[in-house]
Amino acid sequence: MNGFKYYTPTKVVFGENTESQTGKLVKEFGGKKILIHYGGGSVIRSGLMDRVKASLDAEGLEYVILGGAVPNPRLSLVYEGIELCKKENVDFLLAVGGGSAIDSAKAIGYGVYNGGDVWDFYDYKRVAKGCLPLGVVLTLSATGSEMSDSSVITKEEGLVKRGYSSDYGRPKFAVMNPELTKTLPDYQTACGVTDICMHTMERYFVNGDTLDITDSLAEGLLRTVMANGRILAKDPSNSKARAEVMWAGSLAHNGLTGCGTDGGDWMPHKIEHELGGLYDVAHGAGLAAVWGSWARYVYKDCMPRFKKFAINVMGVAEEGTDEEIILKGIEAVQDWYRDIKMPTNIRELGVTPTEEELVEMAHKCAVGVNGCKGSAKLLSENDMLASLKGAM
Amino acid sequence: MNGFKYYTPTKVVFGENTESQTGKLVKEFGGKKILIHYGGGSVIRSGLMDRVKASLDAEGLEYVILGGAVPNPRLSLVYEGIELCKKENVDFLLAVGGGSAIDSAKAIGYGVYNGGDVWDFYDYKRVAKGCLPLGVVLTLSATGSEMSDSSVITKEEGLVKRGYSSDYGRPKFAVMNPELTKTLPDYQTACGVTDICMHTMERYFVNGDTLDITDSLAEGLLRTVMANGRILAKDPSNSKARAEVMWAGSLAHNGLTGCGTDGGDWMPHKIEHELGGLYDVAHGAGLAAVWGSWARYVYKDCMPRFKKFAINVMGVAEEGTDEEIILKGIEAVQDWYRDIKMPTNIRELGVTPTEEELVEMAHKCAVGVNGCKGSAKLLSENDMLASLKGAM
Repeated sequence: MNGFKYYTPTKVVFGENTESQTGKLVKEFGGKKILIHYGGGSVIRSGLMDRVKASLDAEGLEYVILGGAVPNPRLSLVYEGIELCKKENVDFLLAVGGGSAIDSAKAIGYGVYNGGDVWDFYDYKRVAKGCLPLGVVLTLSATGSEMSDSSVITKEEGLVKRGYSSDYGRPKFAVMNPELTKTLPDYQTACGVTDICMHTMERYFVNGDTLDITDSLAEGLLRTVMANGRILAKDPSNSKARAEVMWAGSLAHNGLTGCGTDGGDWMPHKIEHELGGLYDVAHGAGLAAVWGSWARYVYKDCMPRFKKFAINVMGVAEEGTDEEIILKGIEAVQDWYRDIKMPTNIRELGVTPTEEELVEMAHKCAVGVNGCKGSAKLLSENDMLASLKGAM
Repeated sequence: MNGFKYYTPTKVVFGENTESQTGKLVKEFGGKKILIHYGGGSVIRSGLMDRVKASLDAEGLEYVILGGAVPNPRLSLVYEGIELCKKENVDFLLAVGGGSAIDSAKAIGYGVYNGGDVWDFYDYKRVAKGCLPLGVVLTLSATGSEMSDSSVITKEEGLVKRGYSSDYGRPKFAVMNPELTKTLPDYQTACGVTDICMHTMERYFVNGDTLDITDSLAEGLLRTVMANGRILAKDPSNSKARAEVMWAGSLAHNGLTGCGTDGGDWMPHKIEHELGGLYDVAHGAGLAAVWGSWARYVYKDCMPRFKKFAINVMGVAEEGTDEEIILKGIEAVQDWYRDIKMPTNIRELGVTPTEEELVEMAHKCAVGVNGCKGSAKLLSENDMLASLKGAM
């Protein structure tokens, strides 16, 4: 048995109008001077920002505001946020938005707390000793960053996209009102749903010991998210489906679906990070584009898990050889991507890397991956290149 | 949609020999002077207490020790623990044992922190404003108290058994080594497995809104626990099954399997509390004894959930009327109780309440239940009596 640690201290407050509780939650966790960090103008146009401010005002809390976090959030804005926090004596961060705003806020928090160059953490040169406390008002179901220990930042110089994980980065609270996600473009909703599934699938496709209890949760989560992703592709204003997907998004990446494994196989994520760094494609779409090729490249080294997945998650009948069952399962995932209008290869993403660029991405991936290079199959730089080429 | 709060701050450290990390964890959460609280002598005879002490010694931590927590833990020992903590300036509680030691420690923590008579909380007369921090070294998979907000204490005078729930009572950490549960008597293992299932089933049988994502987790958990309960009934030393059940026990009662419902229907637990208070029967066995009668008494008011449960958890084929499917599902649960050697009625528990005693239990239950008296079906005192009589 693999031992494990499970630590999800984030207080979740889920439901309609829960954003009105933001001020009380900030106070509960000791915040006095807050940096509100957000992305684009949609949270302002929708009126959400005004409601959040009113909730802080009602508790007599002071705040400064920094917008501009973009998908694949940038290091330069993180530096700006760190300086602003120091200047304004900020003691609490409040991310209002999706994974970009949250991840950017986490990086700001590491920078303020630890001093020095915050990129060191993302470059595996230092380990954080703490983080400014952080709360979240979530507007997008996708990254799970609202409960997770991870954040991903892109350094403009060299377009390097890297993740850093630390328990210190787990938010103190997360306010989740699924109604807020109804105004999202359909493409972003589908990208989010894909990311959620991938967080669980990458914990699932492993070699070595596993726990049935973890599998049963992961499989149930995946079936539910896939079904509700299909519902939202046709009926984006379906409140119940919005709620199902939002809560699943948090559970998919807070650690629950990986307890008792070796930690998972994160190669599709790592390969996508190179695409996202170089082409700035949407993360979820990038994952969908590279997954099928990765799965076909590695499944022979991880047959029992791919077979179990095909049967228990994708509903493939237990007929024929194991390989036939597995390939039907992989095909069923790609059918699902098509149903929710996600790409199944890199060209469908709208980008056409040259041979040289593919080689460069494989190299950056192999160099950038710190630690495990796969569990379903251990990948060399050549394997990463082959997997990328297969996704063209 | 029902909004919900989800808050599980307990740091879980799961796996073999994890008890050696106890001292470090106590220190991480600020403990300096510890009360080690335990139940019977088994933790001493097994050598566990020595290993825990060595782990505290290694961190230079001071401690005093109080044993004697019994199943259906007693208020008098709680009072004794409170006095000991005050006298010794204890600032951290460490429960080494199962639910009895943990629940007793929680009550001690409420008493020390809040002053006054600690029974007030269990008698719904006061609300706790805090609790002494608490860590757990778990030796029994059952109550889920190692991650839950609840504790149950029995007052000797009048044999009154009552629960109190507060987030302040959630342990700071839980050390879980499933190997430690291998020495348990089979009866206690089966009682624990039953309790685990009931914590999830009582969240499942509700009216009103639910979330599919929660159902999928609950159903997966129940299937896994039932399968592994059967394995342990034949092969008590099966390490993997021990791990499956231990982790499921925590997830079954930390709130996860109830997100998005009205809070659940806790009447089988409440009815059992009266049996446990009066006859001191094992909690899990008491639950098994009263559940079938309760289910048959209420299912007509909650048909969709009982049907879904029969199909998705108990594997009943979708043939015949809804009522036939439901009754097959209830029968399948009772077959499972028989397989793991649990009773399916009160007589099989070895007690034979008189008519007067049944009336008394129903009355104490109706008076003692604070708030909801059922969701699958709202129960009057007469309904409680009928459900009890049906379980004879």
